[in-house]
Amino acid sequence: MFLLLSFLCAMPQETFLYQQLFDFTKTILIKIGCCEEDAALSAKVLLSADLRGIDSHGVARLSGYVRLWEVKRINTSPEIKIIHETPSTAVVDGDSGLGLVVAPRAMQVAIDKAKNVGTGWVSVQNSNHFGIAGYHAMMALEHDMIGIAFTNASPLVSPTFSVERLLGTNPICVVIPAGEEPPFVADMATTTAANGKLEILQRKGGVAPLGWIQTKEGKQSTDPHELKAGGALLPLGGDREHGSHKGYALGAIVDIFSAVLSGANYGPWVPPFPAYVPMPDEQPGKGIGHFFGAMRIDAFRPAAEFKMHMDKWIKRFRSAKTVSSGQSVIIPGDPEREIEVERMKNGIPLLKPVVEDLKFLGEKFNVDF
Amino acid sequence: MFLLLSFLCAMPQETFLYQQLFDFTKTILIKIGCCEEDAALSAKVLLSADLRGIDSHGVARLSGYVRLWEVKRINTSPEIKIIHETPSTAVVDGDSGLGLVVAPRAMQVAIDKAKNVGTGWVSVQNSNHFGIAGYHAMMALEHDMIGIAFTNASPLVSPTFSVERLLGTNPICVVIPAGEEPPFVADMATTTAANGKLEILQRKGGVAPLGWIQTKEGKQSTDPHELKAGGALLPLGGDREHGSHKGYALGAIVDIFSAVLSGANYGPWVPPFPAYVPMPDEQPGKGIGHFFGAMRIDAFRPAAEFKMHMDKWIKRFRSAKTVSSGQSVIIPGDPEREIEVERMKNGIPLLKPVVEDLKFLGEKFNVDF
Repeated sequence: MFLLLSFLCAMPQETFLYQQLFDFTKTILIKIGCCEEDAALSAKVLLSADLRGIDSHGVARLSGYVRLWEVKRINTSPEIKIIHETPSTAVVDGDSGLGLVVAPRAMQVAIDKAKNVGTGWVSVQNSNHFGIAGYHAMMALEHDMIGIAFTNASPLVSPTFSVERLLGTNPICVVIPAGEEPPFVADMATTTAANGKLEILQRKGGVAPLGWIQTKEGKQSTDPHELKAGGALLPLGGDREHGSHKGYALGAIVDIFSAVLSGANYGPWVPPFPAYVPMPDEQPGKGIGHFFGAMRIDAFRPAAEFKMHMDKWIKRFRSAKTVSSGQSVIIPGDPEREIEVERMKNGIPLLKPVVEDLKFLGEKFNVDF
Repeated sequence: MFLLLSFLCAMPQETFLYQQLFDFTKTILIKIGCCEEDAALSAKVLLSADLRGIDSHGVARLSGYVRLWEVKRINTSPEIKIIHETPSTAVVDGDSGLGLVVAPRAMQVAIDKAKNVGTGWVSVQNSNHFGIAGYHAMMALEHDMIGIAFTNASPLVSPTFSVERLLGTNPICVVIPAGEEPPFVADMATTTAANGKLEILQRKGGVAPLGWIQTKEGKQSTDPHELKAGGALLPLGGDREHGSHKGYALGAIVDIFSAVLSGANYGPWVPPFPAYVPMPDEQPGKGIGHFFGAMRIDAFRPAAEFKMHMDKWIKRFRSAKTVSSGQSVIIPGDPEREIEVERMKNGIPLLKPVVEDLKFLGEKFNVDF
């Protein structure tokens, strides 16, 4: 996150108020056929990425979603439904809807099930990209629940020893409520570095650390453009000696829970996000897949007791002795929360190419930007 | 795994049949007060590590468990009970029992709940080390369920930026059934390398790759003895630039699910495995904690359909193009399963110091070895 922000600061950008971007996004989504309610929800989910500093997953992707709608890969009036369920589980069919709408609806099913039987687990087929995992998992917090969100994604990652791109950056998000302390929010790609960080290096002409990417021949590389030349992102760990088989296994678990369990596409057959990339030759399932979980804290112990211990956990880690005196141990979610406060107040900085893209979108649909 | 085996081959060792080691282990456990059934179960769990090539967690630890019993930290006739539950969750109190007994009993509770409501989730307090996570998670397979097992452990790992040891190597194990293919079994420490690998380097006088350990001042080191000099193991990722904040977050999630949710000790307060290491100054909970999950496949889709797709997933990954022609992409669980077949047939190699340790134990309790 720090890395990402320091690059951003060096690039030409323009700042917009949250409400401006929300209104624009919502209006564009209505123009492509979303109902008022879905457009507002989608705009909220999408903008939560910009607010939290995960710029690659926010309004920068709006035109990408529109292009998927243009090639008829997104249905803006989906009939989202449960196709199978037990007291603690469900499979949801997203009916090719925007993942930004399908995901919060599916997470709500998980939360409702947790209310009834302690936990709820929902696997989703026939969806599209859902923005940041964090938004959906964090829905659990107001119910004193632990929230979990996974999704598979366009294949960009090679498993250990391979030169083929068989997995997405497949994030794992786990959100845990605390008491006086802010919640623990871990939202991470299962790669060494998220693709968004690489995109920033590409725009800036920077050099990537070894361990982030490999060439199409499987050699580690520092060139952030290797991905466009047939290279791949590397699983968390980077290489075998540093545990890349663990990052690969984590990405695989996300893929299987999200797609093999639900009946979505998996592995190299996950439909790519860019509309111009041809669809895979085969489709063993429907759309992309997600997986959501909600666990009621008081299904294990009284919530107040748990929160007191979470506060103790967080305080102990935050105050741990550090390598350098200027540092402190970061609790997952701290940096994003701080950025959110700052950006809600002072606005969201967008890179010039993103601004141009949104202006172009506005002109196309006759919406002011 | 390969790394570990290649070191082992270079060290003096003696080979024993599974049945010999099982009988010896069971007899010793009966001598310290376990009932017949618990002794047999514990021996089976402990030996499953030796069979699967995870030598650090097998009979090499038997004398460690005995020493914990000697200092009255292990109760060999525990009353293991559910202290709180909902239809899909439970908290189990292990009554200071051997984790080798407490863990499979708690996993059985998760499986029983999954039979009733689709999934089962059990957090455990007041337990001790449980051997390998894989044994417990794999109990789900015969029921056509996905199995999950976590545990916290003696603090040996520093979170990103810190020089304090606040987390254990906290493993994550996820086991997924397939059809014709063997199951997917991912069982991994949330550190760059498991402590067992470091112990082997220590005995061999080898050098560790950078990214595995740091000195007590927080500098990366290649000396496997740094841990004894106040250094720490590093979270998966190794350093911030390579995603160590993700490994730290994963280890933290395991700690919180296992202990904050159950009422066990967490973070730096987890009781150490070696009986000679003083107990932490404070105990915010009871014993160490585990977390288990079981998800019935047909709570999501028909098991036969799921298994057909798992086979397709596994075959596609296994046959992926590799960097070198002699390699193939490994499916998690492949190496351990192959070792198990080999060792069940040809015996289990033990290092000389382990053999000496077992002989000493045999003499102490008047049991032939």
